[in-house]
Amino acid sequence: MGVVQARMEAALQRFLPATDIVPERLHRAMRYSVLGGGKRVRPLLAFAAGELAGADPARVEVVAAAVEMIHAYSLVHDDMPCMDNDILRRGKPTCHVEFDEATALLVGDALQPLAFQIMAEHVIADSSVEQIEMLKILALASGSRGMAGGQALDLAGVGKSLSLPELEFMHIHKTGALIRAAVVLGARCGHGLDAQEHGRLERYAKTIGLAFQVVDDVLDCDASTATLGKTAGKDAAQEKPTYVSILGLARARALAEELRAEARAALSSFGAPAARLRELADFIVLRKF
Amino acid sequence: MGVVQARMEAALQRFLPATDIVPERLHRAMRYSVLGGGKRVRPLLAFAAGELAGADPARVEVVAAAVEMIHAYSLVHDDMPCMDNDILRRGKPTCHVEFDEATALLVGDALQPLAFQIMAEHVIADSSVEQIEMLKILALASGSRGMAGGQALDLAGVGKSLSLPELEFMHIHKTGALIRAAVVLGARCGHGLDAQEHGRLERYAKTIGLAFQVVDDVLDCDASTATLGKTAGKDAAQEKPTYVSILGLARARALAEELRAEARAALSSFGAPAARLRELADFIVLRKF
Repeated sequence: MGVVQARMEAALQRFLPATDIVPERLHRAMRYSVLGGGKRVRPLLAFAAGELAGADPARVEVVAAAVEMIHAYSLVHDDMPCMDNDILRRGKPTCHVEFDEATALLVGDALQPLAFQIMAEHVIADSSVEQIEMLKILALASGSRGMAGGQALDLAGVGKSLSLPELEFMHIHKTGALIRAAVVLGARCGHGLDAQEHGRLERYAKTIGLAFQVVDDVLDCDASTATLGKTAGKDAAQEKPTYVSILGLARARALAEELRAEARAALSSFGAPAARLRELADFIVLRKF
Repeated sequence: MGVVQARMEAALQRFLPATDIVPERLHRAMRYSVLGGGKRVRPLLAFAAGELAGADPARVEVVAAAVEMIHAYSLVHDDMPCMDNDILRRGKPTCHVEFDEATALLVGDALQPLAFQIMAEHVIADSSVEQIEMLKILALASGSRGMAGGQALDLAGVGKSLSLPELEFMHIHKTGALIRAAVVLGARCGHGLDAQEHGRLERYAKTIGLAFQVVDDVLDCDASTATLGKTAGKDAAQEKPTYVSILGLARARALAEELRAEARAALSSFGAPAARLRELADFIVLRKF
Protein backbone atom coordinates (compact mmCIF):
# COMPACT_ATOMS: atom_id res chain seq x y z
CA MET A 1 0.00 0.00 0.00
CA GLY A 2 1.31 3.45 -0.91
CA VAL A 3 1.71 6.35 1.50
CA VAL A 4 -1.49 8.07 0.36
CA GLN A 5 -3.51 4.87 0.51
CA ALA A 6 -2.30 4.18 4.05
CA ARG A 7 -3.10 7.70 5.14
CA MET A 8 -6.51 7.41 3.47
CA GLU A 9 -7.27 4.11 5.16
CA ALA A 10 -6.47 5.63 8.55
CA ALA A 11 -8.60 8.71 7.82
CA LEU A 12 -11.57 6.64 6.68
CA GLN A 13 -11.19 4.44 9.76
CA ARG A 14 -11.49 7.58 11.85
CA PHE A 15 -14.37 9.21 9.93
CA LEU A 16 -16.57 6.10 9.79
CA PRO A 17 -18.71 5.39 12.88
CA ALA A 18 -17.29 2.67 15.13
CA THR A 19 -18.97 -0.73 15.14
CA ASP A 20 -19.90 -0.47 18.82
CA ILE A 21 -22.14 2.53 18.12
CA VAL A 22 -25.84 1.80 17.50
CA PRO A 23 -26.95 0.69 14.89
CA GLU A 24 -23.97 -1.66 15.07
CA ARG A 25 -24.81 -3.81 12.06
CA LEU A 26 -25.24 -0.81 9.77
CA HIS A 27 -21.93 0.62 10.94
CA ARG A 28 -20.24 -2.74 10.39
CA ALA A 29 -21.67 -2.84 6.87
CA MET A 30 -20.56 0.75 6.17
CA ARG A 31 -17.02 -0.05 7.23
CA TYR A 32 -17.07 -3.30 5.26
CA SER A 33 -18.01 -1.36 2.14
CA VAL A 34 -15.48 1.43 2.46
CA LEU A 35 -12.40 0.07 4.23
CA GLY A 36 -9.65 -2.26 3.13
CA GLY A 37 -9.98 -2.19 -0.60
CA GLY A 38 -10.11 -0.29 -3.81
CA LYS A 39 -7.37 1.42 -5.74
CA ARG A 40 -8.25 4.73 -4.09
CA VAL A 41 -7.81 6.48 -7.44
CA ARG A 42 -9.95 9.46 -6.39
CA PRO A 43 -8.04 10.08 -3.13
CA LEU A 44 -4.75 9.71 -5.03
CA LEU A 45 -5.96 12.36 -7.47
CA ALA A 46 -7.12 14.66 -4.66
CA PHE A 47 -3.74 14.42 -2.92
CA ALA A 48 -1.84 14.97 -6.17
CA ALA A 49 -3.94 18.04 -7.01
CA GLY A 50 -3.57 19.25 -3.42
CA GLU A 51 0.20 18.93 -3.68
CA LEU A 52 0.16 21.02 -6.86
CA ALA A 53 -1.86 23.71 -5.06
CA GLY A 54 0.28 23.66 -1.92
CA ALA A 55 -2.57 22.33 0.21
CA ASP A 56 -2.28 21.07 3.76
CA PRO A 57 -2.65 17.25 3.54
CA ALA A 58 -4.83 17.36 6.66
CA ARG A 59 -7.40 19.26 4.59
CA VAL A 60 -7.01 17.06 1.54
CA GLU A 61 -7.64 13.90 3.50
CA VAL A 62 -11.09 15.20 4.47
CA VAL A 63 -12.23 15.94 0.92
CA ALA A 64 -10.59 12.75 -0.36
CA ALA A 65 -12.47 10.72 2.26
CA ALA A 66 -15.73 12.46 1.36
CA VAL A 67 -15.28 11.69 -2.34
CA GLU A 68 -14.32 8.11 -1.54
CA MET A 69 -17.46 7.68 0.61
CA ILE A 70 -19.62 8.87 -2.29
CA HIS A 71 -17.76 6.49 -4.61
CA ALA A 72 -18.12 3.58 -2.19
CA TYR A 73 -21.85 4.18 -1.71
CA SER A 74 -22.33 4.24 -5.49
CA LEU A 75 -20.62 0.86 -5.80
CA VAL A 76 -22.79 -0.65 -3.05
CA HIS A 77 -26.00 0.53 -4.74
CA ASP A 78 -24.71 -0.29 -8.23
CA ASP A 79 -24.05 -3.89 -7.19
CA MET A 80 -27.60 -4.43 -5.86
CA PRO A 81 -29.90 -6.90 -7.63
CA CYS A 82 -32.09 -4.16 -9.13
CA MET A 83 -29.00 -2.57 -10.74
CA ASP A 84 -26.01 -4.69 -11.86
CA ASN A 85 -26.78 -7.60 -9.53
CA ASP A 86 -23.14 -8.34 -8.82
CA ILE A 87 -21.77 -10.60 -6.12
CA LEU A 88 -18.09 -9.69 -6.13
CA ARG A 89 -16.39 -6.36 -5.47
CA ARG A 90 -12.78 -5.68 -4.54
CA GLY A 91 -12.31 -9.43 -4.23
CA LYS A 92 -14.99 -9.74 -1.53
CA PRO A 93 -18.72 -10.54 -1.57
CA THR A 94 -20.69 -7.39 -2.34
CA CYS A 95 -22.45 -5.64 0.54
CA HIS A 96 -25.92 -7.06 -0.13
CA VAL A 97 -24.44 -10.58 -0.37
CA GLU A 98 -22.40 -10.26 2.84
CA PHE A 99 -25.24 -8.52 4.71
CA ASP A 100 -28.61 -8.18 2.97
CA GLU A 101 -30.28 -5.95 0.41
CA ALA A 102 -32.02 -3.64 2.86
CA THR A 103 -28.75 -3.08 4.71
CA ALA A 104 -26.92 -2.38 1.43
CA LEU A 105 -29.56 0.20 0.58
CA LEU A 106 -29.08 1.89 3.95
CA VAL A 107 -25.28 1.71 3.76
CA GLY A 108 -25.43 3.83 0.62
CA ASP A 109 -28.05 6.13 2.10
CA ALA A 110 -25.93 6.70 5.21
CA LEU A 111 -22.53 7.06 3.53
CA GLN A 112 -23.80 9.93 1.43
CA PRO A 113 -24.66 12.37 4.27
CA LEU A 114 -21.50 11.31 6.10
CA ALA A 115 -19.49 12.67 3.17
CA PHE A 116 -21.20 16.07 3.49
CA GLN A 117 -20.94 15.92 7.26
CA ILE A 118 -17.17 15.52 7.38
CA MET A 119 -16.70 18.31 4.84
CA ALA A 120 -18.88 20.57 7.00
CA GLU A 121 -17.14 19.55 10.24
CA HIS A 122 -13.50 20.07 9.33
CA VAL A 123 -11.38 22.96 8.17
CA ILE A 124 -10.87 22.34 4.46
CA ALA A 125 -10.49 25.86 3.11
CA ASP A 126 -9.27 29.32 4.08
CA SER A 127 -12.80 30.67 4.39
CA SER A 128 -16.30 29.43 5.12
CA VAL A 129 -17.46 30.86 1.79
CA GLU A 130 -14.94 28.64 0.01
CA GLN A 131 -15.95 25.66 2.18
CA ILE A 132 -19.59 26.08 1.13
CA GLU A 133 -18.46 26.29 -2.50
CA MET A 134 -16.67 22.96 -2.03
CA LEU A 135 -19.75 21.35 -0.47
CA LYS A 136 -21.71 22.50 -3.50
CA ILE A 137 -19.15 20.96 -5.85
CA LEU A 138 -19.51 17.60 -4.11
CA ALA A 139 -23.31 17.81 -4.17
CA LEU A 140 -23.41 18.65 -7.88
CA ALA A 141 -20.93 15.90 -8.74
CA SER A 142 -23.02 13.33 -6.84
CA GLY A 143 -26.50 14.27 -8.01
CA SER A 144 -28.76 13.85 -11.00
CA ARG A 145 -26.56 16.05 -13.17
CA GLY A 146 -23.47 14.22 -11.99
CA MET A 147 -22.83 10.65 -10.90
CA ALA A 148 -26.41 9.54 -10.13
CA GLY A 149 -27.52 10.98 -13.46
CA GLY A 150 -24.77 9.05 -15.20
CA GLN A 151 -26.05 5.85 -13.61
CA ALA A 152 -29.51 6.64 -14.94
CA LEU A 153 -28.09 7.18 -18.43
CA ASP A 154 -26.17 3.92 -18.12
CA LEU A 155 -29.40 2.09 -17.25
CA ALA A 156 -31.22 3.71 -20.14
CA GLY A 157 -28.45 2.53 -22.49
CA VAL A 158 -28.71 -1.20 -21.70
CA GLY A 159 -29.56 -3.17 -24.83
CA LYS A 160 -29.34 -0.04 -27.01
CA SER A 161 -26.63 0.97 -29.39
CA LEU A 162 -25.20 4.32 -28.35
CA SER A 163 -23.10 6.62 -30.50
CA LEU A 164 -19.62 7.49 -29.28
CA PRO A 165 -20.73 11.01 -28.18
CA GLU A 166 -23.67 9.51 -26.27
CA LEU A 167 -21.39 7.02 -24.54
CA GLU A 168 -18.95 9.80 -23.69
CA PHE A 169 -21.77 11.97 -22.32
CA MET A 170 -22.86 9.12 -20.08
CA HIS A 171 -19.37 8.49 -18.71
CA ILE A 172 -18.61 12.18 -18.19
CA HIS A 173 -21.46 11.96 -15.67
CA LYS A 174 -21.17 8.44 -14.30
CA THR A 175 -17.45 8.30 -13.53
CA GLY A 176 -16.17 11.64 -14.75
CA ALA A 177 -18.09 13.90 -12.39
CA LEU A 178 -16.67 12.41 -9.22
CA ILE A 179 -13.12 12.11 -10.61
CA ARG A 180 -13.31 15.77 -11.56
CA ALA A 181 -14.60 16.59 -8.06
CA ALA A 182 -11.66 14.73 -6.51
CA VAL A 183 -9.16 16.81 -8.50
CA VAL A 184 -10.98 20.13 -8.08
CA LEU A 185 -11.61 19.68 -4.35
CA GLY A 186 -8.04 18.57 -3.72
CA ALA A 187 -6.77 21.69 -5.47
CA ARG A 188 -9.22 23.95 -3.63
CA CYS A 189 -7.81 22.82 -0.30
CA GLY A 190 -4.77 24.88 -1.30
CA HIS A 191 -4.47 28.44 -2.51
CA GLY A 192 -1.60 28.36 -4.97
CA LEU A 193 -3.55 28.29 -8.23
CA ASP A 194 -5.11 31.04 -10.33
CA ALA A 195 -8.30 30.70 -12.41
CA GLN A 196 -6.41 29.71 -15.56
CA GLU A 197 -4.53 27.00 -13.70
CA HIS A 198 -7.77 25.67 -12.23
CA GLY A 199 -9.07 25.54 -15.81
CA ARG A 200 -6.11 23.43 -16.95
CA LEU A 201 -6.56 21.15 -14.00
CA GLU A 202 -10.22 20.68 -14.92
CA ARG A 203 -9.21 19.72 -18.45
CA TYR A 204 -6.78 17.18 -16.99
CA ALA A 205 -9.53 15.83 -14.74
CA LYS A 206 -12.06 15.50 -17.54
CA THR A 207 -9.55 13.72 -19.75
CA ILE A 208 -8.33 11.19 -17.21
CA GLY A 209 -11.95 10.59 -16.14
CA LEU A 210 -12.72 9.45 -19.66
CA ALA A 211 -9.44 7.55 -19.93
CA PHE A 212 -10.31 5.74 -16.71
CA GLN A 213 -13.58 4.53 -18.21
CA VAL A 214 -12.07 3.52 -21.55
CA VAL A 215 -9.49 1.42 -19.71
CA ASP A 216 -12.22 -0.04 -17.48
CA ASP A 217 -14.06 -1.20 -20.58
CA VAL A 218 -10.88 -2.67 -22.07
CA LEU A 219 -10.08 -4.51 -18.84
CA ASP A 220 -13.63 -5.78 -18.44
CA CYS A 221 -13.27 -7.51 -21.79
CA ASP A 222 -9.59 -8.38 -21.45
CA ALA A 223 -8.73 -9.29 -17.87
CA SER A 224 -9.88 -12.04 -15.53
CA THR A 225 -12.22 -11.80 -12.56
CA ALA A 226 -9.36 -12.76 -10.24
CA THR A 227 -7.20 -9.86 -11.46
CA LEU A 228 -10.03 -7.33 -11.32
CA GLY A 229 -11.47 -8.39 -7.97
CA LYS A 230 -14.89 -7.93 -9.57
CA THR A 231 -16.80 -9.90 -12.16
CA ALA A 232 -15.10 -9.64 -15.58
CA GLY A 233 -16.96 -9.70 -18.88
CA LYS A 234 -20.17 -8.39 -17.39
CA ASP A 235 -20.58 -5.48 -19.82
CA ALA A 236 -20.96 -7.83 -22.77
CA ALA A 237 -23.15 -10.19 -20.73
CA GLN A 238 -25.43 -7.28 -19.83
CA GLU A 239 -25.38 -5.91 -23.38
CA LYS A 240 -24.05 -2.60 -22.16
CA PRO A 241 -22.57 -0.33 -24.79
CA THR A 242 -18.86 0.19 -24.05
CA TYR A 243 -15.88 1.79 -25.75
CA VAL A 244 -14.87 -1.72 -26.78
CA SER A 245 -18.28 -2.59 -28.23
CA ILE A 246 -18.37 0.66 -30.20
CA LEU A 247 -14.72 1.06 -31.20
CA GLY A 248 -13.32 -2.45 -30.95
CA LEU A 249 -10.47 -3.41 -28.63
CA ALA A 250 -7.58 -1.97 -30.65
CA ARG A 251 -9.14 1.45 -31.18
CA ALA A 252 -10.30 1.62 -27.55
CA ARG A 253 -6.69 1.00 -26.47
CA ALA A 254 -5.48 3.70 -28.85
CA LEU A 255 -8.07 6.13 -27.49
CA ALA A 256 -6.88 5.52 -23.92
CA GLU A 257 -3.35 6.29 -25.07
CA GLU A 258 -4.48 9.53 -26.77
CA LEU A 259 -6.32 10.62 -23.64
CA ARG A 260 -3.21 9.95 -21.56
CA ALA A 261 -1.19 12.22 -23.86
CA GLU A 262 -3.91 14.89 -23.69
CA ALA A 263 -4.05 14.72 -19.89
CA ARG A 264 -0.28 15.11 -19.66
CA ALA A 265 -0.41 18.01 -22.12
CA ALA A 266 -2.92 19.84 -19.91
CA LEU A 267 -0.34 19.71 -17.12
CA SER A 268 2.66 20.87 -19.15
CA SER A 269 2.82 24.44 -17.81
CA PHE A 270 2.88 23.24 -14.21
CA GLY A 271 6.31 21.60 -14.43
CA ALA A 272 7.67 19.52 -11.55
CA PRO A 273 4.86 20.10 -8.97
CA ALA A 274 2.49 18.20 -11.27
CA ALA A 275 4.69 15.09 -11.30
CA ARG A 276 2.23 13.04 -9.27
CA LEU A 277 -0.72 14.02 -11.45
CA ARG A 278 1.30 12.86 -14.48
CA GLU A 279 2.13 9.58 -12.79
CA LEU A 280 -1.56 9.08 -12.09
CA ALA A 281 -2.47 9.62 -15.74
CA ASP A 282 0.05 6.90 -16.54
CA PHE A 283 -1.25 4.63 -13.79
CA ILE A 284 -4.88 5.04 -14.87
CA VAL A 285 -4.11 4.11 -18.47
CA LEU A 286 -1.43 1.47 -17.94
CA ARG A 287 -3.05 -0.37 -14.99
CA LYS A 288 -3.88 -4.04 -15.37
CA PHE A 289 -6.73 -4.16 -12.83
CA MET B 1 -53.96 23.46 0.23
CA GLY B 2 -52.69 25.89 2.86
CA VAL B 3 -50.48 28.91 2.19
CA VAL B 4 -47.31 27.18 3.34
CA GLN B 5 -48.05 24.05 1.32
CA ALA B 6 -48.67 26.13 -1.82
CA ARG B 7 -45.47 28.07 -1.28
CA MET B 8 -43.62 24.81 -0.66
CA GLU B 9 -44.98 23.20 -3.80
CA ALA B 10 -43.83 26.18 -5.86
CA ALA B 11 -40.38 26.12 -4.24
CA LEU B 12 -39.94 22.39 -4.80
CA GLN B 13 -41.08 22.82 -8.41
CA ARG B 14 -38.29 25.35 -8.82
CA PHE B 15 -35.55 23.45 -6.99
CA LEU B 16 -36.16 20.11 -8.73
CA PRO B 17 -34.52 19.66 -12.15
CA ALA B 18 -36.91 20.14 -15.09
CA THR B 19 -38.07 17.06 -17.00
CA ASP B 20 -36.48 18.27 -20.23
CA ILE B 21 -33.01 18.12 -18.69
CA VAL B 22 -31.03 14.88 -19.23
CA PRO B 23 -31.57 12.30 -17.73
CA GLU B 24 -35.22 13.09 -18.35
CA ARG B 25 -36.69 9.91 -16.92
CA LEU B 26 -34.80 10.26 -13.64
CA HIS B 27 -35.91 13.87 -13.33
CA ARG B 28 -39.49 12.87 -14.05
CA ALA B 29 -39.28 10.22 -11.35
CA MET B 30 -37.74 12.67 -8.87
CA ARG B 31 -40.57 15.15 -9.46
CA TYR B 32 -43.15 12.36 -9.26
CA SER B 33 -41.79 11.38 -5.85
CA VAL B 34 -41.59 14.85 -4.33
CA LEU B 35 -44.33 16.98 -5.87
CA GLY B 36 -48.08 17.01 -5.47
CA GLY B 37 -48.55 15.13 -2.27
CA GLY B 38 -47.79 14.64 1.35
CA LYS B 39 -48.91 16.56 4.37
CA ARG B 40 -45.70 18.62 4.30
CA VAL B 41 -45.50 18.37 8.07
CA ARG B 42 -41.76 19.07 8.12
CA PRO B 43 -42.04 22.23 5.96
CA LEU B 44 -44.96 23.40 8.12
CA LEU B 45 -42.78 22.95 11.18
CA ALA B 46 -39.84 24.75 9.59
CA PHE B 47 -42.02 27.72 8.66
CA ALA B 48 -43.64 27.85 12.10
CA ALA B 49 -40.23 27.75 13.80
CA GLY B 50 -38.95 30.35 11.35
CA GLU B 51 -41.86 32.61 12.19
CA LEU B 52 -41.05 32.31 15.87
CA ALA B 53 -37.44 33.28 15.16
CA GLY B 54 -38.33 36.18 12.86
CA ALA B 55 -36.81 34.45 9.84
CA ASP B 56 -37.16 35.58 6.24
CA PRO B 57 -39.56 33.06 4.60
CA ALA B 58 -37.31 33.06 1.50
CA ARG B 59 -34.64 31.43 3.67
CA VAL B 60 -37.03 29.05 5.37
CA GLU B 61 -38.35 27.71 2.09
CA VAL B 62 -34.85 26.53 1.16
CA VAL B 63 -34.26 24.55 4.34
CA ALA B 64 -37.85 23.29 4.30
CA ALA B 65 -37.39 22.05 0.73
CA ALA B 66 -34.10 20.39 1.66
CA VAL B 67 -35.68 18.57 4.59
CA GLU B 68 -38.65 17.55 2.44
CA MET B 69 -36.31 16.15 -0.24
CA ILE B 70 -34.58 14.02 2.38
CA HIS B 71 -37.96 12.88 3.66
CA ALA B 72 -39.23 12.10 0.14
CA TYR B 73 -36.10 10.10 -0.74
CA SER B 74 -36.48 8.08 2.46
CA LEU B 75 -40.06 7.18 1.51
CA VAL B 76 -38.99 6.11 -1.99
CA HIS B 77 -36.29 3.82 -0.62
CA ASP B 78 -38.46 2.63 2.26
CA ASP B 79 -41.18 1.51 -0.18
CA MET B 80 -38.78 -0.60 -2.27
CA PRO B 81 -39.20 -4.38 -2.35
CA CYS B 82 -36.11 -5.02 -0.22
CA MET B 83 -37.53 -2.76 2.52
CA ASP B 84 -41.28 -2.42 3.12
CA ASN B 85 -42.27 -3.53 -0.39
CA ASP B 86 -45.19 -1.14 -0.62
CA ILE B 87 -47.13 -0.23 -3.73
CA LEU B 88 -49.11 2.79 -2.57
CA ARG B 89 -47.91 6.15 -1.26
CA ARG B 90 -49.78 9.43 -1.03
CA GLY B 91 -52.60 7.76 -2.95
CA LYS B 92 -50.37 7.01 -5.94
CA PRO B 93 -48.32 3.98 -7.03
CA THR B 94 -44.94 4.06 -5.30
CA CYS B 95 -41.94 5.17 -7.36
CA HIS B 96 -40.58 1.69 -8.09
CA VAL B 97 -44.08 0.61 -9.23
CA GLU B 98 -44.66 3.66 -11.45
CA PHE B 99 -41.08 3.57 -12.82
CA ASP B 100 -38.85 0.67 -11.85
CA GLU B 101 -36.66 -0.40 -8.95
CA ALA B 102 -33.39 0.85 -10.34
CA THR B 103 -34.93 4.26 -11.02
CA ALA B 104 -36.38 4.38 -7.50
CA LEU B 105 -32.95 3.64 -6.10
CA LEU B 106 -31.44 6.49 -8.15
CA VAL B 107 -34.28 8.89 -7.28
CA GLY B 108 -33.34 8.55 -3.63
CA ASP B 109 -29.64 8.73 -4.38
CA ALA B 110 -30.11 11.94 -6.37
CA LEU B 111 -32.58 13.69 -4.06
CA GLN B 112 -30.16 13.47 -1.21
CA PRO B 113 -27.31 15.56 -2.70
CA LEU B 114 -29.88 17.98 -4.14
CA ALA B 115 -30.94 18.77 -0.58
CA PHE B 116 -27.38 19.68 0.37
CA GLN B 117 -26.89 21.51 -2.90
CA ILE B 118 -29.79 23.91 -2.42
CA MET B 119 -28.71 24.64 1.15
CA ALA B 120 -25.21 25.43 -0.12
CA GLU B 121 -26.46 27.53 -3.05
CA HIS B 122 -28.84 29.90 -1.29
CA VAL B 123 -28.57 32.45 1.47
CA ILE B 124 -30.12 30.73 4.49
CA ALA B 125 -28.25 32.37 7.35
CA ASP B 126 -26.56 35.61 8.37
CA SER B 127 -23.08 34.11 8.03
CA SER B 128 -21.34 31.34 6.11
CA VAL B 129 -20.22 29.83 9.40
CA GLU B 130 -23.87 29.47 10.42
CA GLN B 131 -24.76 28.10 6.98
CA ILE B 132 -22.13 25.36 7.35
CA GLU B 133 -23.50 24.58 10.81
CA MET B 134 -26.94 24.13 9.24
CA LEU B 135 -25.56 21.84 6.52
CA LYS B 136 -24.02 19.76 9.28
CA ILE B 137 -27.34 19.56 11.12
CA LEU B 138 -29.04 18.20 7.99
CA ALA B 139 -26.23 15.69 7.37
CA LEU B 140 -26.34 14.40 10.94
CA ALA B 141 -30.13 14.14 10.91
CA SER B 142 -30.05 12.12 7.68
CA GLY B 143 -27.19 9.74 8.42
CA SER B 144 -26.50 6.57 10.36
CA ARG B 145 -26.96 8.32 13.68
CA GLY B 146 -30.14 9.93 12.43
CA MET B 147 -32.82 8.85 9.99
CA ALA B 148 -30.91 6.15 8.09
CA GLY B 149 -29.81 4.66 11.41
CA GLY B 150 -33.43 4.65 12.58
CA GLN B 151 -34.40 2.71 9.47
CA ALA B 152 -31.70 0.16 10.29
CA LEU B 153 -33.04 -0.17 13.84
CA ASP B 154 -36.54 -0.56 12.45
CA LEU B 155 -35.37 -3.41 10.20
CA ALA B 156 -33.55 -5.06 13.07
CA GLY B 157 -36.76 -4.94 15.12
CA VAL B 158 -38.96 -6.86 12.66
CA GLY B 159 -40.36 -9.99 14.28
CA LYS B 160 -38.80 -9.08 17.64
CA SER B 161 -40.49 -7.76 20.71
CA LEU B 162 -39.01 -4.42 21.65
CA SER B 163 -39.33 -2.68 24.98
CA LEU B 164 -40.92 0.77 25.02
CA PRO B 165 -37.54 2.51 25.49
CA GLU B 166 -36.11 0.53 22.55
CA LEU B 167 -39.06 1.49 20.37
CA GLU B 168 -38.69 5.11 21.41
CA PHE B 169 -34.96 5.06 20.67
CA MET B 170 -35.69 3.73 17.18
CA HIS B 171 -38.28 6.40 16.44
CA ILE B 172 -36.20 9.24 17.82
CA HIS B 173 -33.84 8.33 15.00
CA LYS B 174 -36.17 7.17 12.23
CA THR B 175 -38.73 10.00 12.25
CA GLY B 176 -37.60 12.22 15.10
CA ALA B 177 -34.22 13.25 13.72
CA LEU B 178 -35.61 14.86 10.57
CA ILE B 179 -38.56 16.46 12.35
CA ARG B 180 -36.13 17.96 14.82
CA ALA B 181 -33.96 19.16 11.92
CA ALA B 182 -36.99 20.84 10.31
CA VAL B 183 -37.71 22.81 13.49
CA VAL B 184 -34.08 23.63 14.29
CA LEU B 185 -33.19 24.66 10.73
CA GLY B 186 -36.32 26.77 10.39
CA ALA B 187 -35.44 28.60 13.60
CA ARG B 188 -31.82 29.05 12.57
CA CYS B 189 -32.91 30.92 9.44
CA GLY B 190 -33.81 33.70 11.86
CA HIS B 191 -31.82 35.30 14.62
CA GLY B 192 -34.38 36.12 17.27
CA LEU B 193 -33.72 33.22 19.66
CA ASP B 194 -31.19 32.75 22.43
CA ALA B 195 -29.61 29.43 23.42
CA GLN B 196 -32.23 28.72 26.07
CA GLU B 197 -35.04 29.34 23.62
CA HIS B 198 -33.39 27.04 21.06
CA GLY B 199 -33.28 24.42 23.83
CA ARG B 200 -37.01 24.73 24.45
CA LEU B 201 -37.68 24.49 20.76
CA GLU B 202 -35.64 21.30 20.61
CA ARG B 203 -37.72 19.83 23.43
CA TYR B 204 -40.85 20.72 21.48
CA ALA B 205 -39.39 19.11 18.34
CA LYS B 206 -38.40 15.92 20.11
CA THR B 207 -41.82 15.59 21.71
CA ILE B 208 -43.89 16.17 18.59
CA GLY B 209 -41.54 13.85 16.65
CA LEU B 210 -42.49 11.06 19.03
CA ALA B 211 -46.16 12.10 19.02
CA PHE B 212 -46.13 11.96 15.24
CA GLN B 213 -44.97 8.36 15.31
CA VAL B 214 -47.38 7.27 18.04
CA VAL B 215 -50.25 8.70 16.01
CA ASP B 216 -48.89 7.03 12.85
CA ASP B 217 -49.01 3.69 14.62
CA VAL B 218 -52.56 4.33 15.88
CA LEU B 219 -53.71 5.33 12.40
CA ASP B 220 -52.02 2.38 10.76
CA CYS B 221 -54.11 0.10 12.93
CA ASP B 222 -57.21 2.27 12.97
CA ALA B 223 -57.72 4.00 9.61
CA SER B 224 -58.33 2.72 6.11
CA THR B 225 -55.95 2.61 3.18
CA ALA B 226 -58.13 5.10 1.31
CA THR B 227 -57.91 7.65 4.12
CA LEU B 228 -54.18 7.22 4.62
CA GLY B 229 -53.22 7.17 0.93
CA LYS B 230 -50.82 4.38 1.86
CA THR B 231 -51.33 0.77 2.80
CA ALA B 232 -53.03 0.51 6.20
CA GLY B 233 -52.44 -2.32 8.64
CA LYS B 234 -48.99 -3.11 7.33
CA ASP B 235 -47.22 -2.86 10.68
CA ALA B 236 -49.14 -5.81 12.05
CA ALA B 237 -48.80 -7.70 8.76
CA GLN B 238 -45.03 -7.20 8.86
CA GLU B 239 -44.84 -8.03 12.57
CA LYS B 240 -43.29 -4.67 13.32
CA PRO B 241 -43.30 -3.58 16.93
CA THR B 242 -45.39 -0.41 17.29
CA TYR B 243 -46.74 1.74 20.09
CA VAL B 244 -50.05 -0.03 19.57
CA SER B 245 -48.55 -3.53 19.72
CA ILE B 246 -46.66 -2.65 22.91
CA LEU B 247 -49.17 -0.39 24.69
CA GLY B 248 -52.48 -1.31 23.13
CA LEU B 249 -54.67 1.18 21.25
CA ALA B 250 -56.11 3.06 24.24
CA ARG B 251 -52.78 3.65 25.98
CA ALA B 252 -51.14 4.62 22.70
CA ARG B 253 -53.86 7.24 22.19
CA ALA B 254 -53.35 8.50 25.73
CA LEU B 255 -49.59 8.74 25.16
CA ALA B 256 -50.14 10.85 22.05
CA GLU B 257 -52.31 13.17 24.11
CA GLU B 258 -49.64 13.45 26.85
CA LEU B 259 -46.98 14.25 24.28
CA ARG B 260 -49.19 16.94 22.80
CA ALA B 261 -49.52 18.57 26.21
CA GLU B 262 -45.77 18.28 26.76
CA ALA B 263 -45.02 19.85 23.38
CA ARG B 264 -47.35 22.75 24.12
CA ALA B 265 -45.78 23.18 27.56
CA ALA B 266 -42.33 23.51 25.98
CA LEU B 267 -43.66 26.49 24.04
CA SER B 268 -45.37 28.25 26.94
CA SER B 269 -42.78 31.00 27.46
CA PHE B 270 -42.92 32.02 23.79
CA GLY B 271 -46.47 33.33 23.92
CA ALA B 272 -48.29 34.42 20.76
CA PRO B 273 -45.41 34.03 18.23
CA ALA B 274 -45.50 30.27 18.86
CA ALA B 275 -49.17 29.99 17.89
CA ARG B 276 -48.43 28.09 14.70
CA LEU B 277 -46.15 25.62 16.44
CA ARG B 278 -48.96 24.97 18.94
CA GLU B 279 -51.44 24.45 16.13
CA LEU B 280 -49.06 21.96 14.54
CA ALA B 281 -48.77 19.98 17.76
CA ASP B 282 -52.57 19.77 17.70
CA PHE B 283 -52.65 18.87 14.02
CA ILE B 284 -50.04 16.13 14.43
CA VAL B 285 -51.93 14.45 17.25
CA LEU B 286 -55.51 15.04 16.10
CA ARG B 287 -55.04 14.25 12.39
CA LYS B 288 -57.02 11.42 10.84
CA PHE B 289 -54.61 10.58 7.99
